[in-house]
Amino acid sequence: MVFEEKTLKSERIYEGKIINLRVDTVELPKQKYSKREIIEHAGAVGILAVTKDKKIILVKQFRKPVEEVLIEIPAGKIEPNEDTKLCALRELKEETGYSTKNIIKLMEFYTTPGFSNEVMHIYLAEDLEEGDAEPDEDEYIESIYLSINEAMEQISKGIIKDSKTIVAILAYKNLQGIS
Amino acid sequence: MVFEEKTLKSERIYEGKIINLRVDTVELPKQKYSKREIIEHAGAVGILAVTKDKKIILVKQFRKPVEEVLIEIPAGKIEPNEDTKLCALRELKEETGYSTKNIIKLMEFYTTPGFSNEVMHIYLAEDLEEGDAEPDEDEYIESIYLSINEAMEQISKGIIKDSKTIVAILAYKNLQGIS
Repeated sequence: MVFEEKTLKSERIYEGKIINLRVDTVELPKQKYSKREIIEHAGAVGILAVTKDKKIILVKQFRKPVEEVLIEIPAGKIEPNEDTKLCALRELKEETGYSTKNIIKLMEFYTTPGFSNEVMHIYLAEDLEEGDAEPDEDEYIESIYLSINEAMEQISKGIIKDSKTIVAILAYKNLQGIS
Repeated sequence: MVFEEKTLKSERIYEGKIINLRVDTVELPKQKYSKREIIEHAGAVGILAVTKDKKIILVKQFRKPVEEVLIEIPAGKIEPNEDTKLCALRELKEETGYSTKNIIKLMEFYTTPGFSNEVMHIYLAEDLEEGDAEPDEDEYIESIYLSINEAMEQISKGIIKDSKTIVAILAYKNLQGIS
């Protein structure tokens, strides 16, 4: 049976720059109770940007939570009241320098619905125009360019290990298969 | 330039049942500093379980962080010192009742490396034997069965919205394409 959990109490633990943490006490069937630890996140965008010669643009970036340099699609947090498409164009420009008029939404999903409300919006950007990157003050990133086959190989070898990047590339590959 | 961030200070904010939260102060180039909010998670497994008649087993479950009933592959948190394959077999049994001797690792990835260290291990389970589910005391779940084409359709329609489930199904679809 699927049961919707009613909140009995909500305790705010932390309010931060990227995330907040609260702990909800919820009611379960048969007068039972449980705690749910919840990370609040404003949502994010990821951009699968494909150059005119059909290369996917990826960024290399040190990720403190995993203490590793990861290969990811350009991405970033949605600012308050920001339109997700404009956010995608802004992050693409900031992280890679590219801009475009051809950008469409591919999909959206929850990254970790077990403990967070983060929604990830994936855009496909094509017909790219080159320009200068404008990274945030605390961002140190480097672009790389891979063909779809190279990207698929890096996923299957475990070199690309970021979920939004894997979803975006597999979804794009699947679209290619259809067309 | 890609730069590895050295930790100067680490402040523990919360230690919970599923997640911990800490805030690290890190050193950036040019004697600059920044804060990194980090969710510690023990890691999780997700199981793409395929029945003898080629149906994927999915579970419907209310997810408090997003206040929605979601359709997901069976999944769960790794217990301390638990082997990931045994964890996958345990979660499959608990949530669906099925067991098997034919289980292989498909892939692993970081769910949200921007703010968490959670690793997700995806297993493919086949040759399933039916049995009784043994859900946790605070778990209320329901199984559904979809063909690969039905699952792909539910992804493209946005009915399936969980990232690990999307990755597992797209990766499986891609394997099918190759074989």
